[in-house]
Amino acid sequence: MSSLSPTASRCGGPSCAVPDVDLYDAVRRRRDTRAEFTGSPVSDDVLERVLAAAHSAPSVGMSQPWDFVLVRDAGLREEFRDHVAAEREIFASSLAGERADTFARIKVEGIMESGLGVVVGYDPSRGGPAVLGRHAIADAGLYSVCLAIQNLWLAATAEGLGVGWVSFYREEFLRDLVGFPAHVRPVAWLCVGAVAELPDVPDLERFGWRHRSPLASVVHQDRYLPR
Amino acid sequence: MSSLSPTASRCGGPSCAVPDVDLYDAVRRRRDTRAEFTGSPVSDDVLERVLAAAHSAPSVGMSQPWDFVLVRDAGLREEFRDHVAAEREIFASSLAGERADTFARIKVEGIMESGLGVVVGYDPSRGGPAVLGRHAIADAGLYSVCLAIQNLWLAATAEGLGVGWVSFYREEFLRDLVGFPAHVRPVAWLCVGAVAELPDVPDLERFGWRHRSPLASVVHQDRYLPR
Repeated sequence: MSSLSPTASRCGGPSCAVPDVDLYDAVRRRRDTRAEFTGSPVSDDVLERVLAAAHSAPSVGMSQPWDFVLVRDAGLREEFRDHVAAEREIFASSLAGERADTFARIKVEGIMESGLGVVVGYDPSRGGPAVLGRHAIADAGLYSVCLAIQNLWLAATAEGLGVGWVSFYREEFLRDLVGFPAHVRPVAWLCVGAVAELPDVPDLERFGWRHRSPLASVVHQDRYLPR
Repeated sequence: MSSLSPTASRCGGPSCAVPDVDLYDAVRRRRDTRAEFTGSPVSDDVLERVLAAAHSAPSVGMSQPWDFVLVRDAGLREEFRDHVAAEREIFASSLAGERADTFARIKVEGIMESGLGVVVGYDPSRGGPAVLGRHAIADAGLYSVCLAIQNLWLAATAEGLGVGWVSFYREEFLRDLVGFPAHVRPVAWLCVGAVAELPDVPDLERFGWRHRSPLASVVHQDRYLPR
């Protein structure tokens, strides 16, 4: 790839060596990052590996229906940050008592601090007209995009980067902001960047919003409800 | 977890050691498996690690809105296989010429051969009533379920297992088959099992259905279309 970034230099230093991180370690270390971004630039080599991992995700009918818009422009990120702040207030106003107090302490985005937004889109026209495996499940293409996002997230974790999925936005706003055509659906804004650390405990657990459930509570044998 | 399987014995042998597989290797080796299942049983230890990886995926508002139904019952799998065969015919009848000939050579499921179906469901009532990050994006919970599926897929790959996502089905049929209540949406039937190999090249590419696109074709700078 010739130019993932118009500005960052190619990296030849040791920090650009391909990391050897165990899959289960990456799964365990991965966090949804908001407060830990340092703003240090991500090298093209690293970003290319992370995006290549996303692009090698499975997809229905091998349609590869994703797009990745790398938003570095500060003006675009400021516009998005302000929109997210307004949506945060809308959600906050729906809460009361302990929920409102707990939410008030939680940071929901690192749009400016991360330095890079990766906007992920879903293009249902990719791989058509007959997408193998999508005739009965219209959302199968949307599912594929999410598989790519998780590959990106784990690869970024292996590279020592943080990723924060921001979902306090309206799809129409984000579609207009990054210039997606009408048929491309925005699926995610991912803040991606260098971090001071990846905390051991998820933010929402640290701040008392939710606790992780035991695995046994979501596993069932043969049927969920008996016949 | 006390009993992931009602029948399989706990594994104490070397094949049950936790694998040390590089994240990027797992991403690269992962295939959508249909023909390579051997039918050999998967030990409880391995299956628990794979499901635990899924369960530690990120989720909107830490809602963890997924369910996993482990379908070993041969009767249930036969019912699903027959339904999938009918849906395959519906898709085949929409094709003509080269597309029809190419599709005729492609196997779309390994439901019986794999020995295990993992049906993944989405329960939007989880983590409510106010799910942090979902007020503006109703599908954010559905996205979370897909992130869990990709964690499962990569962990299974690291364990040397194959995973095949079957999407030739109607959601209502699968909901009834595994007894999901009306509010739980079936998202995937995953064939999971031991495999003879994981081919280097995806089936759909080997059989001439599609070819993988270059990364550069899906990466954009700042905006998709200019302002």
